[in-house]
Amino acid sequence: MIVGVDYYPEHWDRQLWEADAELMAKTGVKVVRMAEFAWSRLEPREGEFELDWLDEAVELFAKRGIDVILCTPTSCPPLWFYEKYPDSVRTDAEGKRIAIGIRGHRCIASPDLLRYADRIVNVLTEHFAQNKAVKAWQIDNELEADICFCGVCESGFREYVKNKYGTLDAVNAAYGNNVWSGEYSSWEQIKPPSGSYPHAWLNPAYMLDVKRYASHRVARFIRRQADIIRKNCPGAVITTNTWFCEALPDFYEEFSQLDVVSFDNYPPLNIPDDPEELYSHAFHLDLMRGIKRKNFMIMEQLSGGMGCWSPMSRTTAPGMIKGYSLQAFAHGADAVLHFRWRTAVSGAEMHWHGLIDHSNVPGRRFAEFGQLCITAKELEKLRGTAVKSRAALLYSPESEFAFKIQPQTQGMYYLEQLRLLHRALCSYGLNTDIIEYGEPLDGYDIVAAPTLYVRNVKGEAELDKFVRNGGTLILTNRCGVKDEHNNCIMSPLPSGFTELAGIRVSEYDPLGYSAVTVRMNSKEYRCTRWCDSLQTDTAVSLAEYSGGYFKGSCAVSENVIGKGRVYYIGTVGGREFYSDLTGYILEKAHIPNLGLLPDGIEVTEREGEDIRARFIFNNSKNSAEFCLEGKAFALGPFEMRIKITNE
Amino acid sequence: MIVGVDYYPEHWDRQLWEADAELMAKTGVKVVRMAEFAWSRLEPREGEFELDWLDEAVELFAKRGIDVILCTPTSCPPLWFYEKYPDSVRTDAEGKRIAIGIRGHRCIASPDLLRYADRIVNVLTEHFAQNKAVKAWQIDNELEADICFCGVCESGFREYVKNKYGTLDAVNAAYGNNVWSGEYSSWEQIKPPSGSYPHAWLNPAYMLDVKRYASHRVARFIRRQADIIRKNCPGAVITTNTWFCEALPDFYEEFSQLDVVSFDNYPPLNIPDDPEELYSHAFHLDLMRGIKRKNFMIMEQLSGGMGCWSPMSRTTAPGMIKGYSLQAFAHGADAVLHFRWRTAVSGAEMHWHGLIDHSNVPGRRFAEFGQLCITAKELEKLRGTAVKSRAALLYSPESEFAFKIQPQTQGMYYLEQLRLLHRALCSYGLNTDIIEYGEPLDGYDIVAAPTLYVRNVKGEAELDKFVRNGGTLILTNRCGVKDEHNNCIMSPLPSGFTELAGIRVSEYDPLGYSAVTVRMNSKEYRCTRWCDSLQTDTAVSLAEYSGGYFKGSCAVSENVIGKGRVYYIGTVGGREFYSDLTGYILEKAHIPNLGLLPDGIEVTEREGEDIRARFIFNNSKNSAEFCLEGKAFALGPFEMRIKITNE
Amino acid sequence: MIVGVDYYPEHWDRQLWEADAELMAKTGVKVVRMAEFAWSRLEPREGEFELDWLDEAVELFAKRGIDVILCTPTSCPPLWFYEKYPDSVRTDAEGKRIAIGIRGHRCIASPDLLRYADRIVNVLTEHFAQNKAVKAWQIDNELEADICFCGVCESGFREYVKNKYGTLDAVNAAYGNNVWSGEYSSWEQIKPPSGSYPHAWLNPAYMLDVKRYASHRVARFIRRQADIIRKNCPGAVITTNTWFCEALPDFYEEFSQLDVVSFDNYPPLNIPDDPEELYSHAFHLDLMRGIKRKNFMIMEQLSGGMGCWSPMSRTTAPGMIKGYSLQAFAHGADAVLHFRWRTAVSGAEMHWHGLIDHSNVPGRRFAEFGQLCITAKELEKLRGTAVKSRAALLYSPESEFAFKIQPQTQGMYYLEQLRLLHRALCSYGLNTDIIEYGEPLDGYDIVAAPTLYVRNVKGEAELDKFVRNGGTLILTNRCGVKDEHNNCIMSPLPSGFTELAGIRVSEYDPLGYSAVTVRMNSKEYRCTRWCDSLQTDTAVSLAEYSGGYFKGSCAVSENVIGKGRVYYIGTVGGREFYSDLTGYILEKAHIPNLGLLPDGIEVTEREGEDIRARFIFNNSKNSAEFCLEGKAFALGPFEMRIKITNE
Repeated sequence: MIVGVDYYPEHWDRQLWEADAELMAKTGVKVVRMAEFAWSRLEPREGEFELDWLDEAVELFAKRGIDVILCTPTSCPPLWFYEKYPDSVRTDAEGKRIAIGIRGHRCIASPDLLRYADRIVNVLTEHFAQNKAVKAWQIDNELEADICFCGVCESGFREYVKNKYGTLDAVNAAYGNNVWSGEYSSWEQIKPPSGSYPHAWLNPAYMLDVKRYASHRVARFIRRQADIIRKNCPGAVITTNTWFCEALPDFYEEFSQLDVVSFDNYPPLNIPDDPEELYSHAFHLDLMRGIKRKNFMIMEQLSGGMGCWSPMSRTTAPGMIKGYSLQAFAHGADAVLHFRWRTAVSGAEMHWHGLIDHSNVPGRRFAEFGQLCITAKELEKLRGTAVKSRAALLYSPESEFAFKIQPQTQGMYYLEQLRLLHRALCSYGLNTDIIEYGEPLDGYDIVAAPTLYVRNVKGEAELDKFVRNGGTLILTNRCGVKDEHNNCIMSPLPSGFTELAGIRVSEYDPLGYSAVTVRMNSKEYRCTRWCDSLQTDTAVSLAEYSGGYFKGSCAVSENVIGKGRVYYIGTVGGREFYSDLTGYILEKAHIPNLGLLPDGIEVTEREGEDIRARFIFNNSKNSAEFCLEGKAFALGPFEMRIKITNE
Repeated sequence: MIVGVDYYPEHWDRQLWEADAELMAKTGVKVVRMAEFAWSRLEPREGEFELDWLDEAVELFAKRGIDVILCTPTSCPPLWFYEKYPDSVRTDAEGKRIAIGIRGHRCIASPDLLRYADRIVNVLTEHFAQNKAVKAWQIDNELEADICFCGVCESGFREYVKNKYGTLDAVNAAYGNNVWSGEYSSWEQIKPPSGSYPHAWLNPAYMLDVKRYASHRVARFIRRQADIIRKNCPGAVITTNTWFCEALPDFYEEFSQLDVVSFDNYPPLNIPDDPEELYSHAFHLDLMRGIKRKNFMIMEQLSGGMGCWSPMSRTTAPGMIKGYSLQAFAHGADAVLHFRWRTAVSGAEMHWHGLIDHSNVPGRRFAEFGQLCITAKELEKLRGTAVKSRAALLYSPESEFAFKIQPQTQGMYYLEQLRLLHRALCSYGLNTDIIEYGEPLDGYDIVAAPTLYVRNVKGEAELDKFVRNGGTLILTNRCGVKDEHNNCIMSPLPSGFTELAGIRVSEYDPLGYSAVTVRMNSKEYRCTRWCDSLQTDTAVSLAEYSGGYFKGSCAVSENVIGKGRVYYIGTVGGREFYSDLTGYILEKAHIPNLGLLPDGIEVTEREGEDIRARFIFNNSKNSAEFCLEGKAFALGPFEMRIKITNE
Repeated sequence: MIVGVDYYPEHWDRQLWEADAELMAKTGVKVVRMAEFAWSRLEPREGEFELDWLDEAVELFAKRGIDVILCTPTSCPPLWFYEKYPDSVRTDAEGKRIAIGIRGHRCIASPDLLRYADRIVNVLTEHFAQNKAVKAWQIDNELEADICFCGVCESGFREYVKNKYGTLDAVNAAYGNNVWSGEYSSWEQIKPPSGSYPHAWLNPAYMLDVKRYASHRVARFIRRQADIIRKNCPGAVITTNTWFCEALPDFYEEFSQLDVVSFDNYPPLNIPDDPEELYSHAFHLDLMRGIKRKNFMIMEQLSGGMGCWSPMSRTTAPGMIKGYSLQAFAHGADAVLHFRWRTAVSGAEMHWHGLIDHSNVPGRRFAEFGQLCITAKELEKLRGTAVKSRAALLYSPESEFAFKIQPQTQGMYYLEQLRLLHRALCSYGLNTDIIEYGEPLDGYDIVAAPTLYVRNVKGEAELDKFVRNGGTLILTNRCGVKDEHNNCIMSPLPSGFTELAGIRVSEYDPLGYSAVTVRMNSKEYRCTRWCDSLQTDTAVSLAEYSGGYFKGSCAVSENVIGKGRVYYIGTVGGREFYSDLTGYILEKAHIPNLGLLPDGIEVTEREGEDIRARFIFNNSKNSAEFCLEGKAFALGPFEMRIKITNE
């Protein structure tokens, strides 16, 4: 396992560089990321490039055996660029250019930006092409699938729609524009959703294309830089660092042209007391691993309290620095770079704490980082091992988009529906992949597919094949609601899955924060958010509503079809509801598992050709004592126990 | 009673039309509303009208004995119109044109819009003038008294002010513009309240004229279309569908040129548990009936869960579809059209559920609608009956406007003050009219007039006459505060009512969410929001503050004057406070009533020349068992019992 | 003590003037403020001045022995001015001119505004220069240090920065602009922070200069008018009325050119029940007195319930009118003018209640004001006395700015940190000055200096001298964090105070709304917001964390240095925590005090050459019985007891 840090030589006096490199080497740092915001230092005046300082920094690390990841600095063009090309700034929905002077405000479709970005990327990659210390390139920084409303993006969206549909009639038909006299009669009428109205007022079919376009725009920007880097540095690993922002891109499209997924990993600092609110941050890690269905890396890892545009958060509790990094490793990260070596003393992010405080005196957090480096070294033998899973969870970017466009009911979110089932599967110690809806499902025993809201014909076929060949499938409410245009499907829910699930939804009630009770195996559960009243066709009922309008009707069903089984969950329950049901399902399908683990205990495995490691992590703020396969464990908060077996 | 539906032939494949019409006829649908959003299908290209499809749809219904209401489609001009006349779009307070692509964004004062609206209305009404199936016309859709800030509306407002006052001196005097050096020195300085400041910063006198103008602007738009329709279709009933939006128009002005009031009726889906929060939705129905003081109709009636720009609400509980429609009938609706026949599968409103779900499989809600149709048929003999009331509640649109302009205290709203007394009167089984302040009051025994905030000289005279002739009047705090310009009256409160009420307000305390106790007839009540300390002149005290600054001073007074009695309520109490006081008042005035009804039980009556019907409605989510005039009743949630007597 | 009122002759019929003046004289009013919003009446048309009416009003008061304070009316230019100079209106962050028609929307840097303001100020002051009744001038009204984004202010800010730093390199270095490639490469790139991003996204060093400039801009505007007044009316007292607005200016700079501080004093109307939420409004009075370290005046004093852009508040409880005014006197106000004589009947502020209600019938509040006037007369002998304090609290305007720019943690505010220690010191009956950080500290025994966040070299030297000479100093967390540019200091916290405090901060945890327990002298306290883990060097620990990550480490320290003592409080506690600690500190330093006073009881003293007065105020909504130096007291809510001793 490789441990690294993010470092900003351009922020510090040169005399500190040597001391920093020395301390890193001594502590066990193996890789350093640099330069993602350094454009103004790399090209201080138009066309004048100054790379000496970066050469010097790279050399400083190289000679201590520390590898380097360099970044294209296109997230923050220098102010001279904006002054010359004021139209290259992102435009907000009101039609105003975003204020310059902060960060990330370039329009990534601006021809001027692209021309200058091409040049700096070319210059950088040509310059460092032969430098052996530079192992990888990060493109830009934390790209989001937000929308720009400038003229270029306006016509970009129009072209996107034109290419997709060909004729206005086809667009009008796809969007159902006859509603409210919204039929386009010229291409010029097609624009991104500017103006002050919230988007939910807008046509959901149109809005889904807007979100697809926004994601597509990011992928296109990435591909353009990747092509340049690949040309100049044929052997280098190319990535970009992604995160869970408000405007999520389609991760699968985003990384389709890149070599490896890297993730900015900021697990929670404030751990809630209510176990219902505890979701493992590993959900994000499993999702990242699933993007390319292989190991990934952490480009930025939590190192202390965070603060910037918002008040400071709490600091990292003892154990978090080491434990959260090892958790990432347990879930398939091969390298973890902590953000950041030292806390900035100037700029807007000076309250986003690094490993070393403003004082420049290494303290408790740094000491814990040192221990992480020692453990990482011990894990070297696990290099090349992988997380192999019998369980998978399906993620549908289009359903995520569509859920945001039309909130289903108060408090119901797409990702939360996935987290509920991820928590349930993991609570039995199952390695769980989160993969794209539509991917082949060979090799899995059980697949959870909550809220497959938007139709995916390929995905439906994969699921059908999976079940008929003996797989166990968990479906939920809000499956099969929308066609590929985000219009409602005119047939009984769950439409494409009615035969597979063996049920039809007679009626639904969006509960929001209200609740109903459900009785399953003589036990009562409090359910909220949603309730489907199910009519069983070939399925049998596993649970019934015991209160509310739908009292007595089926809430959870089980259907045997082909060699497999399909479960349909019509409502949204609490932790116990899902874990009890999952226990039943695993038993029915004879899927080996560790039994229900205690709160917060996470068990994962990586395996290689002749080696296997089990990671037992106490992902909680309390100490835990428990037995696992007959063996007693006592783990402090955020403590990781790793057991390596040679086979 | 006539039951109908709202239908959108333009949304559905033509092959569905015939099946729909057939099912409607079979179920008992008697009237269908169409075309309020169909402009882009009626005039797909400028000046090219396509009415064949609508002819066909009308014919389909006509031949099954189903009447048709057609709409002028001016709420949503086609996009080709906006492309040609970008200035015809509404302008927001920031001076920006509202984004096109949603709905209802035309400026209703735009000369271009008016020209094109005139033409489509002319074409439609001329075309259908001779069609006997078309019984009525709805103008536009859910018009709101919001303000546009375009140049046309800016000068429109200026003209309005100029016509009203004549000279700048008169304007300055009326608005009290000498405060803060706000005196107009040229007409050009007079504009609608654009800019980012909240309106409460602005001069309340000026703001009242802004609201009057906004309401006036709607009425003018309606009149223009009504004139065209009346010219082309002399016998047709003309209406517009109104609702309780944020920017309420003056309903009395809105309907002054129309034949009948129609209302979009969406009673609550989530019934609160706390009885203090339960207000009957019948308040709105009684208000609608009072606009023209005759029966009205429901143009859109709740049919399922709602969702669009907001998350989906809960679905209609069993009983609501039928019960709420019958409630409307009990309160004077003669026709109820459910919105909508089938749920849309595309467009922004696809989560606003109709009677039939997306699946196109009629379910529980449709079955309940079928039962409604059967009951409606049984009620045919009540055609022509009316709601006759001995109790009235006064509604002052100007007080509503003025309360919004200057919030009195936290949590105090004009309409809520009316609802408190409406609930109290109805809880004794009294039919209660809600009528405009200023209307003649002949025939009533008791009139409740809460918060007559803005002076109405005619209204004061009517009340004076009413009381002196023997009527019982209930006044409250915040009566007589403002003159007709919305400036404060320089005399002791309740100013114009001091003699009638026989009291003066020594001082007031805006309690907001704080509370005081009031003792009335040896019982303590918790009062909030407001507290007037009363000095009794000719009145006697019925209740005194038993806590707070005003401890011991009068809170509720009773004054005998002429042949009548006047009550003044200085504070705002809970449900029991008003019902106890109302019980006392009814007894004092010998007004026949049913005694205090149980929670949620509503009793109303309609009567004709030789027929009388009593409607007993359990407007609650719980079953109810109770006695009424010695007879036992057991009603399920939202169940209506109707007793018809021939006399 | 002088009692006065604010009066608006221009709002009332001339026939009321005489009656008003007569009633004022009879009641005991000694001074009247006029004309701060009267520009449109003083210069109704450009260049035409009408001062007769004001002459008449002044004369009316003068002949009854009532002094007059006149105002420059520059807060509200007439509409003819705005019509002629539309660019003189303030521009918001979005680049839009603020809507005209309200108040205070002129840009105070606009050359046109300044030209017209100069002229009206000249005309007014020349005219009244010889009028003996006019004793003082108020400049403008309630100036705030907000920012305008017009071209004039944009270049004004640029010039400010240019003058301060000289070169772009110096600016870039001071702001740390190399972060995120934010380096200025031309002066034109320097602008105020326009655009829609919240300011916290922006560079904190840049933002501190923005706030300094905003404050500077106000001071410059004041100075310009002060120069004119001083030239024309050499003997007149010049002031401006300030208040605690959102955009606080640097009060010390604001009043640097003025003769006396005047304050708009609106103490709380709604008194919370939780004693933890009770802070004395005297905090503001002590701060006002400390601005020029001498007595001040109240230009506007609470007279009734308030309402304008927000719902009406509660009215003044019995005792508040008199009690709050005497409280101001007790804390160093020599004159208190009630806002306002009569409540406005028109304009946006008509719900901001004066002493007399809309009805024009003097009531309870006016009667209480009459009693105040009687007491004020009895206090005449205290004229010339001053508040002398052995305790001081330091206020750092730059720390206030910087805390707003970067919120430290949820719920933590700069001023609240000061209030906690103000409350603690006052609860022992100590007169407490609040003075500027950097002022000499001679004469104080104890100085509390919470959260000296931004470095002030002069202030550090003063504190060092103060302590070494025997003073007692209380420091807290967040001292010494930032340098003078608002960048973090690269040395252990509390940086410049480590030697003085004898501790270093090992690590901190921003708790926000979370809590830890602290044990001090065997007692447990609940602390929140912040927690510093302290390493004692020369200090001893007074309290330790008894829970949380830092369990066992020092939370409060005491250091003996030179002849003095320094306390460092690493966390934020509740009322009892501070009062217990303060009791210990006072005892250790042998500082005479009254012992811990009961809740809400405030004791202050004023003294003159041969006279001394003790003010005992029950600043609470409950009656209080207590002993003070062996004497029993019983005080009603807001009752003041004054004991005068001749010495």
